[in-house]
Order: sequence, then C-alpha cells, then structure tokens
Amino acid sequence: MDKLPLTLPDLEPGWVWLVGAGPGDPGLLTLLAHQGLHQADIVVYDALVDPRILDLARPDALREYAGKRGGKPSPTQPDISARLVRHARAGKRVLRLKGGDPFVFGRGGEEALALVASGVPFRVVPGITSSIGGLAYAGIPVTHRETNHVVTFVTGHGVTGEVPDGLDWTSLARGSPALVFYMAIKHLGTIAERLLAAGRRSEEPVAVISRATTEQQRVLESTLGSVAVDVANAGIEPPALVAVGEIVRLRAGLDWLGALAGRKLTADPLASKIHRDAV
Amino acid sequence: MDKLPLTLPDLEPGWVWLVGAGPGDPGLLTLLAHQGLHQADIVVYDALVDPRILDLARPDALREYAGKRGGKPSPTQPDISARLVRHARAGKRVLRLKGGDPFVFGRGGEEALALVASGVPFRVVPGITSSIGGLAYAGIPVTHRETNHVVTFVTGHGVTGEVPDGLDWTSLARGSPALVFYMAIKHLGTIAERLLAAGRRSEEPVAVISRATTEQQRVLESTLGSVAVDVANAGIEPPALVAVGEIVRLRAGLDWLGALAGRKLTADPLASKIHRDAV
Repeated sequence: MDKLPLTLPDLEPGWVWLVGAGPGDPGLLTLLAHQGLHQADIVVYDALVDPRILDLARPDALREYAGKRGGKPSPTQPDISARLVRHARAGKRVLRLKGGDPFVFGRGGEEALALVASGVPFRVVPGITSSIGGLAYAGIPVTHRETNHVVTFVTGHGVTGEVPDGLDWTSLARGSPALVFYMAIKHLGTIAERLLAAGRRSEEPVAVISRATTEQQRVLESTLGSVAVDVANAGIEPPALVAVGEIVRLRAGLDWLGALAGRKLTADPLASKIHRDAV
Repeated sequence: MDKLPLTLPDLEPGWVWLVGAGPGDPGLLTLLAHQGLHQADIVVYDALVDPRILDLARPDALREYAGKRGGKPSPTQPDISARLVRHARAGKRVLRLKGGDPFVFGRGGEEALALVASGVPFRVVPGITSSIGGLAYAGIPVTHRETNHVVTFVTGHGVTGEVPDGLDWTSLARGSPALVFYMAIKHLGTIAERLLAAGRRSEEPVAVISRATTEQQRVLESTLGSVAVDVANAGIEPPALVAVGEIVRLRAGLDWLGALAGRKLTADPLASKIHRDAV
C-alpha cells in the first residue's frame, strides 16, 4: 500500500486505543486500526481476532491474549482492564484489539470506563461489526427497501451465558422484520421457540453464518421452524450469526462470494422460493 | 503506510465494487476500500462521502457524483444502476462509493441486483455504518451490558421521504431499550411523539449527532420530551443520527473526543444526572 495522503492520529505512549478488528477478513480492518497496529508496543487481543490481522503488528510488539475461549482459565474483565491500565501507566502504546466493533456486544464501554477511572487517555476505533459485515459476506443485506426499514441486533447470551433475561420477545418479534443474533448457536432452539411463540412464522427464512468473512465461512439456510435441527445436523459450531427475516431471501441474488465460486445469482430473489439447505 | 503483508483481492476491469466509505473520518475506511479506490478507473460517489476519502482515488480516475442532495436534479436509482452497468461493460474498474455501509439503509442491495440482472460481476465491501461509528465518536456505545442486550436501527424516512409506513411503534418502544434513527432530523417531532405515545418516558435521554466523525461533528444531548424543540433551537441540520435510550448517559464517561479537547470524564456515567444541553 502506498503512503497515504492522509494525516491520521498517532497512538501515543501512555494511551490505549480500543480497536475493532472487524469480523475476520483483514481487508475489513480500518486504516486507523492498521496504523495503530503498526505503532503499538503491546497488542492485547481477543479470541476472535484473525491471526492475519495480528500479523500486522510490529514484529517486536508484545502480543497478549485476553480471550475468553479455550481450555485455559479465562482472564476476567477486571483483569483485562487492570492490564490495560498497567501497560499504559508504564508508558506503552497499548492497542486493545477486539473482534467486530468494541461497542457492539464487545464490552468496550466497560474497558473504557476502567481507563477513565484510572485517568488513562484513550481513543475508540470502531470496526465493522460482525453482523453487518458477516451478513454482507453471505450476500444478505441487513436492510433492503422492499423488506425492512428496521433491523434489530440481539446478543444470544447475557452475563450468565444464558439467553439474556428481560428480552420482550413479543415486541422483538413484532417490531423488527429483520433480526440478527450474535453468538446465538448455543441457545438457537430457545431463540427460535420464543420467536415462534411470539408469532413469527415457522417457514420464515433464517440464515446461520459461522466464521463469517473468513476462509472457513459456512452459511446454512433454513427456516425458523427447522433451524435448530438443521444446525445440529450440519454440525455448525460457534461463533455464528443468525439472521431471521425476508432479508435472508435476498441471498439468492446477492451471494457475491458464491458467485465467485460459480453460483448463478437471480436478479429477483424475493420472488424465489425459500431455500432450505439439505443437511 | 507501508506495504501490507496481506494479499487483498484486486478490483478487476469490468467489475463493480459496492463500497462503504464509513461515516466520514477517512481513518475509518477499510483496507479493501482503500485498495479499491487506488485501483478504480471510475468512482461513482454519493453526497455523504468525505472529500478526503475521494482524494484517495487515483488522480486520473473519473469521479462521478451520484448524490441525491443539493439543488440539481438528482439521478434516480435506475439511472445510477444503469451507469454502473455501462461503465463495467466498457471494461472499466468501477467503484461505487456510498456513505456508511452499502447494506444499511444504503440501497446497495438494489444496485447489486441491477448488476446481477445485467450479468456484471460485483463484490460488496462493507463500511463502518454511520450509527455505530457516529455514536462511538460521540462517546456512546450502541450496546452496554448494564443498559441493553438489544439495539434497533431505524431509518427516519422511507421511500416517499416521510416517516416509513408500517412501523410498529409500540413494539419498537417496548422491544428495544436503545434505538438509533438514521436521517431523522426532518421527522424528529413525529418520531419523538410516537415513542412517547408508545410509552417511552419524556425524560429519557436522547443524543442528536450531526456530521458524525467529521470535523463538523456536533452532538446535542436532550430528552425525548424536549429534543424536537432543542434541535430546532440549536439549528442542527441533517445529516444527523438520533440515539434514544440509557446508552446516551454513557457519554458522560466515554466522550473520548471531548476529553481530547479537555472535557473531564466520569467513570460512573450511569449514576450521573441526565444532561440537557443549554440551547
């Protein structure tokens, strides 16, 4: 990449940048994130950050894993925040790298408030959120004039790891023709049941996108009534996004990644029959 | 910027890339968008694209305005789509540059389907959507564990330029603690009234962010009961985002851009009183 005719802010010693790495594809990293990675002394990164993105850090930068998956005991949120504060106070240029966007189900607000409490200066660098980027790579726009003027994002698990308490499923089902759930695989059966109980149709199209925008991306098309069984049969693993609504039908026309691999697209996808992957 | 240790796809002759330019700040452009701009023969751009982003195109690239604002007669959507097809068929490398994300209230799906109908190959390059990026630059996370597990995005005007028909305001008001409206200034009074009629509190915090992430960014804090009057008094112009919900209170802690200019942040913003800008 040539030298940019742009002046971007520098990641200064003693600062923390809370940076969104986007959904996976390194091409979806922002210029600011890229510059921050190039300048950081320490990169504190999450489980869902693509290794190719981490490779953009300086060779001599320290890389610290702060992920919450895998067999090892996970650092708690206060641990991670304390670590960011400690590094910043030591005069390091600290880049906190989170999957997707730090302020969309990313706990970026909590980490930033911990920095505020300690007087550590920070900048927020938004990233492409997984739902919007991930659905786009599955050929599904989160909005489309003919289908929806509203889109709702919901996290599939709350503080305790269960489906979040206090969701008003009836209002969600009625208020938003398009719903996208983050981290919803574990509780997919419950989510589908609640939407059905709240009046959504069992033949409503659903797409499940795992490892969105990476080379391991898988997309399963199903219906609200069948998706829990289909996902189990297909052996789809987290992390995955679940999209519910007519927007999913647009994939028959807009699956540009499929078209790269030879899929024939239709220019009139909303007229086509609902697709359900054979599993 | 140094040479990337990454292989990104090339924008090939005869192809169209539908690219999101992000909310304004050129630092929020993606690496893919940046590469596409560098390779494109023709950039067809919208009104809300920052000139500094357009400057990243090759000096000899054709720049075609397809905006829908200003005094001149606006090109229709079929005009724009036909133009993209014509350029691609002429063997050009065509970059269609849209504000925000092409698939979030951006009509990207319509343009892509027109390309499909004409057999023109395309790629979608997501951008940071204005709501998420714009709110982040106002110090407002669209989600935060203590306030919401759901966020809903709504367009403030529909096909006819009016508040979209068919919105279920009661369900929106009940289903989503955090609502973000795009292009909502014109109909702000109506939107606030409907939310109040549907049971949202008149003292609920609201933020209006105009020209988000640009040097002209303005943020007005108000309440649902007062925002229409406050915005009129302050003379805030479109384009603007409107955020409704407790998330707005987090700005007292997370306004990092304000902190750069000397604002003192609080580490406990949800405990603080609701702020209303004097106007």
